[in-house]
Amino acid sequence: MSHLRFDMATNEWVIFAPSRSLRPHDLSRQTAGCPEPTPKKACPFCPGNEAFTPSEIYAVRDAGGSPPSNWQVRVFPNKFPALQVEQNPARYHDEQGFPCMGGCGAHEVIVESPNHDLVLAQQPTAQIELVLSTVQLRCRDLLGDLRIRSVVAFKNHGLGAGTSLVHPHWQLIATPVVPRQLRVQHQEAENFFDRHGTCLFCVLRENELRAATRIVATSDRFVAFMPFASHVPFEIWIMPRHSQPAFTRASSDDLRSLAKLLKTVLVKLYRGLGNPDFNLSIDDVPRGDEDQDYFQWHVRILPRLTTPAGFELGSGMSINAVLPEEAAAFLRDVPTA
Amino acid sequence: MSHLRFDMATNEWVIFAPSRSLRPHDLSRQTAGCPEPTPKKACPFCPGNEAFTPSEIYAVRDAGGSPPSNWQVRVFPNKFPALQVEQNPARYHDEQGFPCMGGCGAHEVIVESPNHDLVLAQQPTAQIELVLSTVQLRCRDLLGDLRIRSVVAFKNHGLGAGTSLVHPHWQLIATPVVPRQLRVQHQEAENFFDRHGTCLFCVLRENELRAATRIVATSDRFVAFMPFASHVPFEIWIMPRHSQPAFTRASSDDLRSLAKLLKTVLVKLYRGLGNPDFNLSIDDVPRGDEDQDYFQWHVRILPRLTTPAGFELGSGMSINAVLPEEAAAFLRDVPTA
Repeated sequence: MSHLRFDMATNEWVIFAPSRSLRPHDLSRQTAGCPEPTPKKACPFCPGNEAFTPSEIYAVRDAGGSPPSNWQVRVFPNKFPALQVEQNPARYHDEQGFPCMGGCGAHEVIVESPNHDLVLAQQPTAQIELVLSTVQLRCRDLLGDLRIRSVVAFKNHGLGAGTSLVHPHWQLIATPVVPRQLRVQHQEAENFFDRHGTCLFCVLRENELRAATRIVATSDRFVAFMPFASHVPFEIWIMPRHSQPAFTRASSDDLRSLAKLLKTVLVKLYRGLGNPDFNLSIDDVPRGDEDQDYFQWHVRILPRLTTPAGFELGSGMSINAVLPEEAAAFLRDVPTA
Repeated sequence: MSHLRFDMATNEWVIFAPSRSLRPHDLSRQTAGCPEPTPKKACPFCPGNEAFTPSEIYAVRDAGGSPPSNWQVRVFPNKFPALQVEQNPARYHDEQGFPCMGGCGAHEVIVESPNHDLVLAQQPTAQIELVLSTVQLRCRDLLGDLRIRSVVAFKNHGLGAGTSLVHPHWQLIATPVVPRQLRVQHQEAENFFDRHGTCLFCVLRENELRAATRIVATSDRFVAFMPFASHVPFEIWIMPRHSQPAFTRASSDDLRSLAKLLKTVLVKLYRGLGNPDFNLSIDDVPRGDEDQDYFQWHVRILPRLTTPAGFELGSGMSINAVLPEEAAAFLRDVPTA
């Protein structure tokens, strides 16, 4: 059973999920290293293997096929959950007086499609739209539980990005506290709004649209750009053009437009950089602030092209060897059709 | 030439060092991936190859040998520096009005020993002591430049920890701003001191000594423990037992005692986990606060046994699958002799 521990040095909660690991010595070099890709036949995310996952939470099914394998998108709890709704979020002190919290939350898997081998960039736009609307539906549902303070929706693509199962999927982790990094960023954005009367993220977007040099691609409702102060090479943000604090409030038209632009961006990354590993997450406003104009939800893509080392881990400061202007110009020139 | 860019979303400065990279398309999967270990003959850090490094800054030499290759420890600027003393730290706006700063600072390499193949855990204690005193000497010297606000001393061990040259070495990066993560942590520690009249880090150390379950090893002047809220499996802190805010003020007796305990800890990691990749850094007080009792310098070792993925990158929150009590018990049992 998992629990959270409070780090007094950083004011951060750390999730401890011992069920996700073997014993300490199993981490040694003899057995660790890159996980092997799961062979297709044994893949618990493939149609026909539904019995090998925890109980289904949600699925979109094709009326024509035969159940239970006629799904297009399928959601179930992670088999080795970081957090679980069955737990109690009460805070307590362990027998030695150290501050803890029960491992209450949720950890869900959203399988993108029945196809084991098709990466998201290769999916039709309609399928990407279906994935996005499923992610949104599950976020809305989880936020209905008042013990949940935050939901992070993310996707790991490639072994170097932390994937252990190659069948393309997203994950949601719902936490009983707002992760401190997000809380600090929301605080900064709120301070900025108080001082200037405008949303910091909208200012960043408008600045990038004006500068134009770091734009990767645009659609009718969204813009994809590499931020001026990108922390890693080829970091990409996809942001609505119109003010919209909460991802959970995005309309189906919004998600359709996002799906189109997300596909364009992913195809450019896939072709331009040879299918790089990446992490993708949705930065959202905290629950309760969905109508507050200080924030602007956005998608953040972080390719894993370089390895952060001792300086980055020791200081939190990033060293980026690629200018986003050059990276954006490079990706703009990659054809998508 | 490098420069810094201000990230308005996080209030962090990001270092841009284009000289450290090839062009964007060189990052693609075809040419990227794990760097090949440098063969010994071509290693610029080996004795006899002194001409292949930038000009020497400092070295400890053996009176008996013949120069220039008779060194025991050798310091020179990084060939692809993130920051340079020749730059101007003035702040400016680029042609589009975005906030920047000149890439002023320093980036030095400290070669641990003439031996290409001996990792730090295998060095005699006296050699480790020599490395630590050289690191301290260089930190003191760099902090004499008033444009430098912070020096991060670190070591990357293994390809998975971001090493590109295998010959064992440390690095120093001196920055013209205090990295924000460090500034926030110093602020927290100062607030704690104001409220409680004691150093937060000394409280953490005393709590761990009392609990005893997470102690890895001790020496007369230092204690090595895994923090209660460790962010990654096998995270280890080595901290003086006596109150001492600044690493740069540590005495030679302190460094001798640290060298002994650091060797013990590294040998346990090497044997227990099969020579794992790790990053090591020294957390120090900011310049000017060397006599302030709110801080306590310490060494932090972060083994790279797991890959942070989309949740960690998207939220800043850590998921740790290994309880530090179990990891510490495991390492305590690993023999060192």
